[in-house]
Amino acid sequence: MSVAVIPFRPVDPKTRLSRLLSQVERETFARAMLADVIGAVRSAGLEPLLLSTCAYDCPGVEVRVEPCGLSDALNNLLPLFEEPVLIIMADLPLVTPDAIRRLTGTTADVAIAPGRGGGTNALYIREPARFHVDYYQCSVQKHLGIARDAGLSVECVDSFRLYLDLDEEEDLVDLLIHGTGRARACLEELGVGLAITRGRVGIERQPPLHGTGTIVRPGGTTGAAGH
Amino acid sequence: MSVAVIPFRPVDPKTRLSRLLSQVERETFARAMLADVIGAVRSAGLEPLLLSTCAYDCPGVEVRVEPCGLSDALNNLLPLFEEPVLIIMADLPLVTPDAIRRLTGTTADVAIAPGRGGGTNALYIREPARFHVDYYQCSVQKHLGIARDAGLSVECVDSFRLYLDLDEEEDLVDLLIHGTGRARACLEELGVGLAITRGRVGIERQPPLHGTGTIVRPGGTTGAAGH
Repeated sequence: MSVAVIPFRPVDPKTRLSRLLSQVERETFARAMLADVIGAVRSAGLEPLLLSTCAYDCPGVEVRVEPCGLSDALNNLLPLFEEPVLIIMADLPLVTPDAIRRLTGTTADVAIAPGRGGGTNALYIREPARFHVDYYQCSVQKHLGIARDAGLSVECVDSFRLYLDLDEEEDLVDLLIHGTGRARACLEELGVGLAITRGRVGIERQPPLHGTGTIVRPGGTTGAAGH
Repeated sequence: MSVAVIPFRPVDPKTRLSRLLSQVERETFARAMLADVIGAVRSAGLEPLLLSTCAYDCPGVEVRVEPCGLSDALNNLLPLFEEPVLIIMADLPLVTPDAIRRLTGTTADVAIAPGRGGGTNALYIREPARFHVDYYQCSVQKHLGIARDAGLSVECVDSFRLYLDLDEEEDLVDLLIHGTGRARACLEELGVGLAITRGRVGIERQPPLHGTGTIVRPGGTTGAAGH
């Protein structure tokens, strides 16, 4: 069974959501997104392996702690695999088993699912020893170059479910529209919902039924005006 | 041959790019994106029909002028078709023939390609007389409801090439990374390119070789930090 390596940062993740969510809430939300990704990779027939920046307990999932940077951590790991490996980010809560099968079903040596802004959100590598990763700073272009230099064929997988990583408040809109898993439920439990104001779809946070210290944001301030 | 209806606004389009591009440049850029969409629908075996907000000459393409709103214009048109119809937005410069074939090859009654923020970027309708459209304000949810109420089956097509409509400066990053057509070439001719600053991928505008009145923007101010 092929392995799906999922890099994960348990502590103080998703800081660009800090205006909307407290640190504890962001950590809860990150775990919910991770659960969605783990569920999808398992349904696609892969064995998840968590690559965590610090000690983290994830019942039923092997966890490897690598406090070094993302690329170094992965490049230490890749040569250990003789089977194909999928590397998939933990903040892709719209991912489905079908989207993952489009990567693992490639006939190319490497399949890349680009992320918004030049990122690499998922990477399927048939022969891990022949490839290395180089994340951040338009990594999708770097990964295409690495494959080319190694003489490896590449398929770019055209999926918005893999393209949408959750970084900004605006990204939550699409999670609330298209999500069906634990990350969406987590947002709803936190009182975060869609708000349509002046034709723009935004998000707002309502006070939950129980608890204090909530933030209420006007809808539309972080919204988008789609067709 | 099925028709692909392409709504188009020739005058003063894409106002959210106004800080970067003048009105004349935005109109040039919109025409370049339209050319990419027309090329892709033709390669996918469809006949383009331009639905323009005002008189517009598009050599080789039938143009219908409808100054009324987008939904009204389309709903006036749909009952006239006895064949399946594709409605596709003009600001999808990453679209490929393959992405369009994923819509037209659906086994469902309706296929929807969602856009960022709840939009509907492409819509394939097998029996146009049984459907009507309702754009803006999270139209993807409205279109799912309209199909459900009409007893029509729906497939949501998972494509980032159809998901990415060009509205914000930040969207230009992905066009410059993944685009290969005329819209990308148009941006490059205008001196707009990628800039990587402090780990974030942004855009900047350099003075072109000829001409005056250019704007130079620091990279990264509208950028994204992908994986």
